[in-house]
Amino acid sequence: MGSLATAKFLEVLAQESEVENDQDHIPFITLSLPDISDRSRAITIGSDAPLRQILERALWLEKAGCGAIAIPCNTAHFWASEIRYALSIELINMIELIRTPLHVTSGKIRDIRTIVLGTSATMMQPLYPGTNKQCFGDEVWQSISELRDSTATVITDVKAGNITRAKENLQQLVQDARSLNPDAIILGCSELSAISGGLAADGNIIDPITILAKECIKWWNGGQM
Amino acid sequence: MGSLATAKFLEVLAQESEVENDQDHIPFITLSLPDISDRSRAITIGSDAPLRQILERALWLEKAGCGAIAIPCNTAHFWASEIRYALSIELINMIELIRTPLHVTSGKIRDIRTIVLGTSATMMQPLYPGTNKQCFGDEVWQSISELRDSTATVITDVKAGNITRAKENLQQLVQDARSLNPDAIILGCSELSAISGGLAADGNIIDPITILAKECIKWWNGGQM
Repeated sequence: MGSLATAKFLEVLAQESEVENDQDHIPFITLSLPDISDRSRAITIGSDAPLRQILERALWLEKAGCGAIAIPCNTAHFWASEIRYALSIELINMIELIRTPLHVTSGKIRDIRTIVLGTSATMMQPLYPGTNKQCFGDEVWQSISELRDSTATVITDVKAGNITRAKENLQQLVQDARSLNPDAIILGCSELSAISGGLAADGNIIDPITILAKECIKWWNGGQM
Repeated sequence: MGSLATAKFLEVLAQESEVENDQDHIPFITLSLPDISDRSRAITIGSDAPLRQILERALWLEKAGCGAIAIPCNTAHFWASEIRYALSIELINMIELIRTPLHVTSGKIRDIRTIVLGTSATMMQPLYPGTNKQCFGDEVWQSISELRDSTATVITDVKAGNITRAKENLQQLVQDARSLNPDAIILGCSELSAISGGLAADGNIIDPITILAKECIKWWNGGQM
């Protein structure tokens, strides 16, 4: 993921920790080695090349003394099972955390229809619940597919620092997604979370990065090692 | 330093890196172990208790493979010489970086008068150039001393997440400092940088955190190991 998304995750982590002093904040190590190869591309072509790099980093964090690991990258969660299996410490799994807020937001227990805005892989493969072709039918699925290019443009803009343009285009994207009447919209790429501002407070939009940060705080407060 | 200030430093680092892809961003390790003891208090009572903790962390980062270390905490720089001496990798020293922008901002080569807003130690001890009693004379120095309590309140508010109130009070603080006619005002605590918004673009205000982030990028681009 991009460096701005990392900063956003840490900002949410700081803001959601309701503490009075420095000393009460969660201790953490952030490992940002952005030379990791493109996750979305790998998934689309059926390769798991980035997995080896992710595992290497995760095991390094375990060895460094971390008690749990969070990966604020949606696409990397395609390999969540493999990562969890390789670790002897906990992986706080962002995708699993989404299930409850998804049902609360949609007001449905089952048969929800979710539009994910994210990398091509995250949008087209069933990473989150209620996101596949069967949930929407051919016609709407086609319209969702057509959002891929403009989503990719927003993500690229955030990574390259074109924030003003990216924010405007994200607003438009959300509007386009809303017109397809999903039960919920997931900001399924941390670059989108990074520029979302107050979007996630608005109706049926879910921001996994905020939910992950909150869960990390809960983990830390709830009897870590 | 507080976790929000850490996030702010990383945000500036990301935004100032003019790159197109994740892979071009600076690789980094952030070590945020906020149980380190109060730096300002230690300096005020003449103790160097936090130095041992800072050195332990710096040497850990060196051992982890970092090529240079940046400490986005102003107060910790009272021990910059000791830290530099203990390391075999480079310490990118925030205080030294300030000298040029300070002279550019003030338009003076020497005899500048600088007001630092920061922790009590940073405000009252000569960490930055042009900040001591002799530069201002007794009366103005007394007025600067009186800004300490309200600065401490803003810092505490940021650490505790009371951002709206802190922002309002920082505006007032800057106005009070300006009324004492310094050549420059330094946002000498990363908690103030974290909430400064566009302040540092405005006239004679210097934000060391932004300058440090830019220097880290320069270091990375200029032939790191």
